[in-house]
Amino acid sequence: MKRSDLVIVGGSAAGVEAAIIGSRQHGIDNITVIRREQKVMVPCGIPYIFGTLGSAEKNILSDTLLGDTELIIDEAVSIDPKAQSIVTAGGKAIGYEKLILATGSQPAAPPIPGRELDNVFTVRKDIEYLQSLERALDYAETVVIIGGGFIGVEFADECKRRGLNVTIVELLPHCLLLNCDEEFCIRAEEELTKRGVKIICGNKVSAILGDHRVKEVELATGERLKADVVIIAIGVAPDTRLAQQAGLEAGDFKGIKVDLYGRTSVPNIFAAGDCAEKYSFFTGKPVGLRLASIAAHEARIAAINLFEPRVENRGAIGVFSTKIGDIAFGAAGLTQRAAMEAGFDIVVGRAGAVDKHPGSMPGAQQLQVKLVFDRMSRRLIGGEASGGVSVGEVVNIVATAIGNGMTAYQIATLQIGTHPALTASPIAYQLIDAAERAFPSRDW
Amino acid sequence: MKRSDLVIVGGSAAGVEAAIIGSRQHGIDNITVIRREQKVMVPCGIPYIFGTLGSAEKNILSDTLLGDTELIIDEAVSIDPKAQSIVTAGGKAIGYEKLILATGSQPAAPPIPGRELDNVFTVRKDIEYLQSLERALDYAETVVIIGGGFIGVEFADECKRRGLNVTIVELLPHCLLLNCDEEFCIRAEEELTKRGVKIICGNKVSAILGDHRVKEVELATGERLKADVVIIAIGVAPDTRLAQQAGLEAGDFKGIKVDLYGRTSVPNIFAAGDCAEKYSFFTGKPVGLRLASIAAHEARIAAINLFEPRVENRGAIGVFSTKIGDIAFGAAGLTQRAAMEAGFDIVVGRAGAVDKHPGSMPGAQQLQVKLVFDRMSRRLIGGEASGGVSVGEVVNIVATAIGNGMTAYQIATLQIGTHPALTASPIAYQLIDAAERAFPSRDW
Repeated sequence: MKRSDLVIVGGSAAGVEAAIIGSRQHGIDNITVIRREQKVMVPCGIPYIFGTLGSAEKNILSDTLLGDTELIIDEAVSIDPKAQSIVTAGGKAIGYEKLILATGSQPAAPPIPGRELDNVFTVRKDIEYLQSLERALDYAETVVIIGGGFIGVEFADECKRRGLNVTIVELLPHCLLLNCDEEFCIRAEEELTKRGVKIICGNKVSAILGDHRVKEVELATGERLKADVVIIAIGVAPDTRLAQQAGLEAGDFKGIKVDLYGRTSVPNIFAAGDCAEKYSFFTGKPVGLRLASIAAHEARIAAINLFEPRVENRGAIGVFSTKIGDIAFGAAGLTQRAAMEAGFDIVVGRAGAVDKHPGSMPGAQQLQVKLVFDRMSRRLIGGEASGGVSVGEVVNIVATAIGNGMTAYQIATLQIGTHPALTASPIAYQLIDAAERAFPSRDW
Repeated sequence: MKRSDLVIVGGSAAGVEAAIIGSRQHGIDNITVIRREQKVMVPCGIPYIFGTLGSAEKNILSDTLLGDTELIIDEAVSIDPKAQSIVTAGGKAIGYEKLILATGSQPAAPPIPGRELDNVFTVRKDIEYLQSLERALDYAETVVIIGGGFIGVEFADECKRRGLNVTIVELLPHCLLLNCDEEFCIRAEEELTKRGVKIICGNKVSAILGDHRVKEVELATGERLKADVVIIAIGVAPDTRLAQQAGLEAGDFKGIKVDLYGRTSVPNIFAAGDCAEKYSFFTGKPVGLRLASIAAHEARIAAINLFEPRVENRGAIGVFSTKIGDIAFGAAGLTQRAAMEAGFDIVVGRAGAVDKHPGSMPGAQQLQVKLVFDRMSRRLIGGEASGGVSVGEVVNIVATAIGNGMTAYQIATLQIGTHPALTASPIAYQLIDAAERAFPSRDW
């Protein structure tokens, strides 16, 4: 039986990152990656296949990233933790010294009657499946998207780029409400509406109707919407079939239980990414976050800690960004609503200014920032932003500040660089302003 | 005699920010700002007047930022620290409870013969003066810029946008060498050269020649360059005339000496911005940094600390960013060269990847990052980046990490958000990669 010092099951963000870091940090020269897919989709790129990128072939995660790693295209079907070996569907047996499970997730499938009809799709990370969605959209006029989270919203925006009639049906009162506070959700909805996307919130699809192929969806309120294609984007569930077979413990959110070093309940087996249970940076409690950036983060931690504990996973902050039309949105940590639900006594600071300076610089765009602080400790526990493309890195500053436990005054006196073509003015830098506004001395 | 609870001398970045924060933090409702200029130039915007913006009128710092602050356009000529009052050139006397000096800087004037000729300009923050430069450039074909620091480089790029023949003469072996390591300087020079800017490094202007008006410059090597206009951009010197008159102590770099709360040697007088002495975050020693972002930072600290010490200035990190052609450059903290000169034993990590993902996303651009760590503590002490517009905020993440004393492993496991249109891929995020590459476990 072939043996590898490090075997990784799964070839998406967590699997690839684990292989890269295992090789680079420890110099392991016989890493094996086992994955089902011939070609791996860039997970966050999937919605962009259908508009911006133009084809699934342009959204492939290159295998060159794996370097000298041995790649086995096969399905791992069982683990023998005592013998430290894995068997694949193709009958291969591979021994391991260390094993990292990065088996990812499967789209959550809601119990909606009719979801088995043709042209009803979930968001699977599978190139052939996504190509069949491409073909279906080629012949479609009207698309209904079930779920107005960031994946649903991105699909809506991209389908609009194809010139389709698009409707989002979202259960909650607003799109993006799990990621952003209402004010940002409303701004996103306005942008979607401006682009011609129809949004139905506070409602749900009770049935998908059609004869072999979908024709309509029926809402809980009885209304019917025409639909040539339905895309279900209501989240994902961890794929833990292999872990369950091996007797690994699972957590409250059905992910593989891991400790703060990424180790599972069985020696020499680690888990990272969507298949692993996540814990909140803020409360320590299990959370349902599933993001490629978290997957890569956990893979780095697991891979660094393979032979001895070195770095701790302090819990997921949860950092998200997206772009709708010309406006980017981002959030890190707790929204105001989530913070209040978690029992924090909070103080909010807001600021807005153009993202270049002076405002007459070409391409200047409003950048709005909202920061959420814990009242007593004055620590930053969340932040949201909307604006131009710099929002992606602005929320990463917010995340860095949260991770470092920075207080409002520390952020109000953050040292930053500014430039007319790249950032807000030094006297109107949004993060600093929002922090300073949150705690005026005169109120204390 | 009129008395104000807070008087601020100077109306540029530090002065305006001090007024805003004084009002907002403490609720002071009778702030007075004394400044010389009718109209204040956005300091960092000055080079952009001559190309991108098109006129000095588009680069005015709006007085609306001052809110209810009383504005006196006049020159403060003397302070009586005992009486806590100021006299202006116009004969006004104003009493103060707290005084913040934000008198800024003057362009450094090198002792080059001929610098008094017509069409030889320094970079003064004065609208009429800059308008006379605009007019001179309108009739010019050939411009020589003395100094290849970031102001010089920005002027070169903008003069090129006007279609002028532009030559930079820089004393050091490369442009931008005080801000960036050689590899980034070379990339900047390549971009400038591609845009048609002629660069002469390791040389200096020994004389400016002409008859009433400049015609040529002569280099130390004897070469002569035609010049219809000469722009001298070799840095600034603190303007401490008023402070000297009042008997305030000065530091080694000629700035007004301040403590870590922004207080000068005289009670109730603070100083902030270019006029104040700066100390290095890394060594505690005086440094020659003069940036609008540092000015605003010091103004916030002084204004917050007006009535009692609340926040400390931990020393200037020095964060800079600029854009040349389509490439942005940024740096925070110590360059590799500066770190070595300061006696640090360093380890460097580098990484590069596209700033969107997959690389087929429209507008994707290479983003290169270099991080400099202290070997023993593994703490980040500097970082540089080049790439698209996100560089401005990427170096602000670097600065935030430096300010928090983050180690390589902490940065290698930084929690960030990623998105196809906004950032690198989660498995190729440059800051994280560069930190992780700097310290492979197998080397320890």
